[in-house]
Amino acid sequence: MLGSMMNSQLTITSIMKHGKRINPNKEVVSITSDHEEHRCTLNDIFERSGKVANLLKTHNIEKGDRIATLAWNDFRHMELYYGISCSGAVCHTINPKLHPDQVSFIANDATDKLIFLDVMFIDLIKTIEAELTSVKQFIVLTSDASVVDGLGDNWSIYEDDISAYSNEYDWPELDENDPSQLCYTSGTTGNPKGVQYTHRSLVLHTMAAIAPDAFSISKNDCILPIVPMFHVNSWGIPYMAAMVGCKLVFAGQKVAEPETLSRLMQNEGVTLSVGVPTVWNLLAQYIQKNNISLTTLKRLVVGGTAMPAHLYRYFQDEQDMTILHIWGMTEMSPLGTLNHIHAKEVQDLDDEAFFEQKLKQGIPIYGVELKLINDDGQEVAWDGKESGNLLVRGPWVVDQYFNRPDVKNVDGWFDTGDISTIDQYGYMKITDRSKDVIKSGGEWISSVDIENAMMSHPDIFHAAVIGIEHPKWDERPLLIIENHSGDSLSYEEVVTFLTGKIAKWWMPNAVEYVEEIPMTATGKMHKLKLREKFEQYSF
Amino acid sequence: MLGSMMNSQLTITSIMKHGKRINPNKEVVSITSDHEEHRCTLNDIFERSGKVANLLKTHNIEKGDRIATLAWNDFRHMELYYGISCSGAVCHTINPKLHPDQVSFIANDATDKLIFLDVMFIDLIKTIEAELTSVKQFIVLTSDASVVDGLGDNWSIYEDDISAYSNEYDWPELDENDPSQLCYTSGTTGNPKGVQYTHRSLVLHTMAAIAPDAFSISKNDCILPIVPMFHVNSWGIPYMAAMVGCKLVFAGQKVAEPETLSRLMQNEGVTLSVGVPTVWNLLAQYIQKNNISLTTLKRLVVGGTAMPAHLYRYFQDEQDMTILHIWGMTEMSPLGTLNHIHAKEVQDLDDEAFFEQKLKQGIPIYGVELKLINDDGQEVAWDGKESGNLLVRGPWVVDQYFNRPDVKNVDGWFDTGDISTIDQYGYMKITDRSKDVIKSGGEWISSVDIENAMMSHPDIFHAAVIGIEHPKWDERPLLIIENHSGDSLSYEEVVTFLTGKIAKWWMPNAVEYVEEIPMTATGKMHKLKLREKFEQYSF
Repeated sequence: MLGSMMNSQLTITSIMKHGKRINPNKEVVSITSDHEEHRCTLNDIFERSGKVANLLKTHNIEKGDRIATLAWNDFRHMELYYGISCSGAVCHTINPKLHPDQVSFIANDATDKLIFLDVMFIDLIKTIEAELTSVKQFIVLTSDASVVDGLGDNWSIYEDDISAYSNEYDWPELDENDPSQLCYTSGTTGNPKGVQYTHRSLVLHTMAAIAPDAFSISKNDCILPIVPMFHVNSWGIPYMAAMVGCKLVFAGQKVAEPETLSRLMQNEGVTLSVGVPTVWNLLAQYIQKNNISLTTLKRLVVGGTAMPAHLYRYFQDEQDMTILHIWGMTEMSPLGTLNHIHAKEVQDLDDEAFFEQKLKQGIPIYGVELKLINDDGQEVAWDGKESGNLLVRGPWVVDQYFNRPDVKNVDGWFDTGDISTIDQYGYMKITDRSKDVIKSGGEWISSVDIENAMMSHPDIFHAAVIGIEHPKWDERPLLIIENHSGDSLSYEEVVTFLTGKIAKWWMPNAVEYVEEIPMTATGKMHKLKLREKFEQYSF
Repeated sequence: MLGSMMNSQLTITSIMKHGKRINPNKEVVSITSDHEEHRCTLNDIFERSGKVANLLKTHNIEKGDRIATLAWNDFRHMELYYGISCSGAVCHTINPKLHPDQVSFIANDATDKLIFLDVMFIDLIKTIEAELTSVKQFIVLTSDASVVDGLGDNWSIYEDDISAYSNEYDWPELDENDPSQLCYTSGTTGNPKGVQYTHRSLVLHTMAAIAPDAFSISKNDCILPIVPMFHVNSWGIPYMAAMVGCKLVFAGQKVAEPETLSRLMQNEGVTLSVGVPTVWNLLAQYIQKNNISLTTLKRLVVGGTAMPAHLYRYFQDEQDMTILHIWGMTEMSPLGTLNHIHAKEVQDLDDEAFFEQKLKQGIPIYGVELKLINDDGQEVAWDGKESGNLLVRGPWVVDQYFNRPDVKNVDGWFDTGDISTIDQYGYMKITDRSKDVIKSGGEWISSVDIENAMMSHPDIFHAAVIGIEHPKWDERPLLIIENHSGDSLSYEEVVTFLTGKIAKWWMPNAVEYVEEIPMTATGKMHKLKLREKFEQYSF
């Protein structure tokens, strides 16, 4: 050994310890089932994480054991994040919007030992309790003891349980490659698959995400994460906030109520919020109707799917906000690309082309590498035109799904299942899911591009395009529009609207109206269900 | 294995590859011995790094071999950083301001195989060439072939040498714990000691340093690093700039010429500059005298020693800049603490107390832990009053000096050799070097505090305080003032000026004037030399 640097481990514990020492007094505001407005500090959360760790010890939880949560965003869920991970166990966030069968599959697949759940999910768990083979105790996240009356001996109350314990806990020295959190993909086909994040992957993701050209998070921020803590760790916000020491606002179960959101944003001085377009659409409608300016909120981070152009323009031009489009996946912790316009060449684009550039998924964040290949495995040019299968790799990309040795990466790259283009400036644009792409006359039609073009119509929020078998072209696109009002555009009106916005030969062969486009538990259009519904369709 | 994330390595190569793909066209402006104003792009630098790597291969350089540089900041030095490290060798930056005996000691201790040097260091190397036992070739960083005329067969010209090679190089997959750069401490006592940075330590340092609450570096910045690339890798700027993809301006050998600096800053749109107070003082005098406003420069990062209060106020109030005080060491890559005022309690301080807080070294950056202990090894309270020995640890802190198994950390902490206080907000303040502290009547007197108080006098730029043996108190402070003009304050005037600024019992017992206070090669006051000079002094 000629000389070297310390082998300090990148652990969630190191974030907690830094937060405790440096920024203990930053406020955390929460809506919970038993608090209209709960206020505490980051330090209170870290202190109570010690109680959580002591509680786990009493339940004989060992290193690497999975402990489940079914919970909205609030201070208790954040205590569980730190108390569970830093004691060496794995915090397994279950999406409570999944079908009960999927919840029980997931809890059994992970062999969860305990489940911490919000009051409103008691009924869900009761319906599957008998099937949960590994869970020894159900702990309800409240101080209201009445909610577990008559539920059985293995049901208890969080505030009662932890009150018995000290804040003091001798946090173990963990290896940075130890598992820390577990999150299952929603899986529109087949069973959900688990992604088990390590301490290292989460710390590196946090460091990369707070950078100025990423989320740009400083101690002066106040963050309201709309994305739930059961969706890829709320995109990492609970770690970022602790690392920089900034204020947090959690909207609990009211996370999709625009009145609550806009009130919290104004009263608490929220500067940054992160979420999916559906919620931004509800918020825009509400604040527009009520003439509200969100004066402190300056940055919206938007992921899941691209924000429709009219909504983007509304927040940017009317509300004076910066929109940051991001793209990622559960398998990527989730951050893959970010759309900050910057290359000189890109800045010289004319107004319309510049805006089109803004709506792309963006350039890879440092740490993530992209690769675009065709079906023969050949690399595809970065020219913004040719599309290919998008592969990724990096320190926060999944190597191996939990419990699924049968599913393997090829040559060290993870196949995202997305079809995309990358332009000469490095901007990636998703053109389709590989299973949704429409193959017409040997060429690929992007269902996403047609959908986005259609959703730029002011009266249409949800539109889906699927491929329908066609005797001559193999497949042709069918446009499906969600229509609440009963008023509907004629096929001719649709064609007129889309002309010039998409390639001529991409024009859908027909339009169908449905009352509601089915959505997955993560807020994406459920195309599998649409394909089932229109299985017998012919032009 | 139940599931995990990819084991992607944190290497300098990953920074280079990211920079090439994402921000290839950002400009790099350099002053060199053969260019008044050289312009290229980040991509040009990375391409030519391939030539450097091919050149090393021809010289049979193997993984881990040390390759030395004696060079100012410019594009070629940056090519060497990447070409050497990414090919698996170690880039050993030698400080050319050191005494020739120290340069030869360092080159031999590191067994450097090649030396790349600027034209102006040929004479220095010629005086020690015979003593350099491991160096096989001396390569001068120029295109001017005449400079090596008659120097011998093992002297050659950089541009000639690399022109023979392709840009293409099959960069190896390195382990993140492989060594990457080597830098020796200047060492006021004993021989210099080498700190060998790993790829991992440099990548993590870079990620931490670009964060909003640290240097806050984005692709929109334009950085002029005044700190030389032979001082702890110019505090990491060549990595940070490549990671985010921002413009760089290198002042070459003119790095201490205020006219050149202010011209570059204005012409190139420099937004951020990093350096030590001595240079900021020269710059302030020049722009003040010439009525120059540095309109694009918004942030100064100041390290080495604290910036004197009047200088801090000048840049802040007259030039509308934000001053970021940092503290670090060669052994810390170098970043340890940063002074961004933020805690609510701190913001509520009155004006004077707030300013005093600003002049402290600051709070630890995420990744670095501080510990304060007394001479018995007991932890000292974080109350801003009690001082102790400052220990640090973290992933970019030295574990083991190069070639020095005899010097060891204790219990995993590195002893900085500094005496400091830490207040309740986490702000650390260096009060002394442990070897400079004055022990008077069993109590510690901070030489640094007296020096700073004295240097707040508008006519005094350099003042040093050393301990002199005293029959009653063991030691008492002697104040030494640098006096160019011949005009000097009387002892009574000094006492009047210092009264109220330092504790009564700290008042120096005498004042001595010297024409010049000796400085170390890294710009710190050379107290050892002063102590030698005043060895026979008595009050």
